[in-house]
Amino acid sequence: MKPILQSLLCCVGMFVGGFAALGVLSPPQSSRAEEALVQLLKLQAEEWNRGDLEAFMQGYWRSPALTFAGARGIERGWDGVLARYKRVYPDRTAMGHLTFSGLEITPLGEDAALVLGRWQIQRDRDQPSGVFSLVLRRFPDGWRIIHDHTSAVASQQK
Amino acid sequence: MKPILQSLLCCVGMFVGGFAALGVLSPPQSSRAEEALVQLLKLQAEEWNRGDLEAFMQGYWRSPALTFAGARGIERGWDGVLARYKRVYPDRTAMGHLTFSGLEITPLGEDAALVLGRWQIQRDRDQPSGVFSLVLRRFPDGWRIIHDHTSAVASQQK
Repeated sequence: MKPILQSLLCCVGMFVGGFAALGVLSPPQSSRAEEALVQLLKLQAEEWNRGDLEAFMQGYWRSPALTFAGARGIERGWDGVLARYKRVYPDRTAMGHLTFSGLEITPLGEDAALVLGRWQIQRDRDQPSGVFSLVLRRFPDGWRIIHDHTSAVASQQK
Repeated sequence: MKPILQSLLCCVGMFVGGFAALGVLSPPQSSRAEEALVQLLKLQAEEWNRGDLEAFMQGYWRSPALTFAGARGIERGWDGVLARYKRVYPDRTAMGHLTFSGLEITPLGEDAALVLGRWQIQRDRDQPSGVFSLVLRRFPDGWRIIHDHTSAVASQQK
């Protein structure tokens, strides 16, 4: 190989290395990520509707750095967020039937994403609902929610 | 240059290209990003406290894809979010004096970040306060909020 050609290939190599790392050359990656995120939330709703809060919590980052924000302030850590859910939804009647809808996924680079969506709980006595913003990161064992901000929305404001 | 050395440099080039794109070789970048984010929110609070909502809104992505979630549901687009602020805070008395505090910045790759924080408004008649989650992206002209989820928190729950 001529040195000039080799130099050219070297430059091409640097560009390919750079762009591949940025994910520019791998568009299917983001739709695979979207599928994984939709699947994670689908599984979470299924676990909730089975009444298994600990399994539902598998969608969250198992870390003291996990944060959950809402009208009750900021809850911290996987254990803290689980404790909050147990406090607010102490039994199957309180948990009701959970549905997520209207998911809007915004990729943030290769290993993070924002998911905006709506939640609704069907219960005998009421049907609370609202909006959530999730920030997720891709870990070696899959995507996990690292931050959740959830709000209830009064029904006339939806 | 010997072809073998050139091939080696080519491989090094690919790795450097890849790692540089991932930001692995530039750790000071993230503290610069943190400074820029803190500065953006500082400026936003200053503009608010000058009573200039349009200048405050410069911190947001000027796009129809901007989203703002809260107890009133989802607001869309830069114009929609500005209209919401004008509706909720129609004059200087309603705007009061805004303070952001307790900022927690989580980098999400090189060009995105999550900022969790607290807001407080001092007014003659009341002092509403709460928490916010901002997702920001770095654009060619700087960081901008692409999603805001803000909640009011009742004072006994802070």
